[in-house]
Amino acid sequence: MELYSGHINKLIEELAALPGIGHKSAGRLAFHIIGMPEDKVKRLANTLVTARENVRYCKCCCTLTDEDICPICKNEGRDHSTIMVVENARDLAAYEKTGKYDGVYHVLHGAISPMIGIGPGDIRLKELMVRLEGDVQEVIIATNSSLEGETTAMYISKLIKPTGIKVTRIANGIPVGGDLEYIDEVTLLRALDGRITL
Amino acid sequence: MELYSGHINKLIEELAALPGIGHKSAGRLAFHIIGMPEDKVKRLANTLVTARENVRYCKCCCTLTDEDICPICKNEGRDHSTIMVVENARDLAAYEKTGKYDGVYHVLHGAISPMIGIGPGDIRLKELMVRLEGDVQEVIIATNSSLEGETTAMYISKLIKPTGIKVTRIANGIPVGGDLEYIDEVTLLRALDGRITL
Repeated sequence: MELYSGHINKLIEELAALPGIGHKSAGRLAFHIIGMPEDKVKRLANTLVTARENVRYCKCCCTLTDEDICPICKNEGRDHSTIMVVENARDLAAYEKTGKYDGVYHVLHGAISPMIGIGPGDIRLKELMVRLEGDVQEVIIATNSSLEGETTAMYISKLIKPTGIKVTRIANGIPVGGDLEYIDEVTLLRALDGRITL
Repeated sequence: MELYSGHINKLIEELAALPGIGHKSAGRLAFHIIGMPEDKVKRLANTLVTARENVRYCKCCCTLTDEDICPICKNEGRDHSTIMVVENARDLAAYEKTGKYDGVYHVLHGAISPMIGIGPGDIRLKELMVRLEGDVQEVIIATNSSLEGETTAMYISKLIKPTGIKVTRIANGIPVGGDLEYIDEVTLLRALDGRITL
């Protein structure tokens, strides 16, 4: 016998398919939704569909945006000769939150991962190469410090170097406020290698 | 400047308003949804609205169901003279999963909590009292072991006792597999008081 009503089970199942939502949280969410006013549920459903239908890729940097060209690429006050390459729009947002970076971005929407069959052709690399035909002084590779992120960084670096454009990689090291005791050995060694003179 | 597109911000905001979803998870979910095939997003949105519109309270035990009377109340193989009172449909499901309880339920949809203004009139108590006019031998109070759950249990017990129907409360004690070292003093004392002869 099913524990809940068919509609609730279906809702739980679909919610549990979303990332980071286990079966228990899906149950909690489903019962919350059943208890919400009907107009609020309709608004939420509508927001889902509207966002999915209207958000597109920026024609310049490939980030997700409501317009053809995103506000960062449109902004003439930013340094368009410096491009930071990130894996996704959340990484872009992380650097934007610092408020200190005034260059522009390029969003790859993924990283090269031969293990799961994602090759250079599956991420937005071609679009990056087209941009390099313009006046670009530096490409900062800010992919994640994971196996896939490093592979992607190496690949892009090899691709760009022949063009003579400066290619840099964000530093590895101890996170600010981090306790050495809890930091893995590879990071400790990277931090040592990357030490700076005081 | 806004970090994301307007549609994404709106989606994040609405998702973050759901219980157990913080701003970070809402961001992760929103980007996942933007990346989903459009028909799947529409199906999810539709499931939300359909569930909200079609799920109702069982006319007998008040649990959430797709029909007027839920499958448990309809089931003549169950013992309708034993009613277990629970706070919500998830608690009902928890006991159903044990597969060992063959009585029926009554779902209160809340617990008495003077602190946040929930009185006896705000939970499905009146419906329980109506059921007691039939042939009921025992009411097992299985509200949570929280302040609100205990208050509700005391209140219901006082309400039912004059009718002569047996009223019981599920036991407090050490959870199976629980390590005494990590269990609070009140539970330890309840477990001691409730000790059984071997």
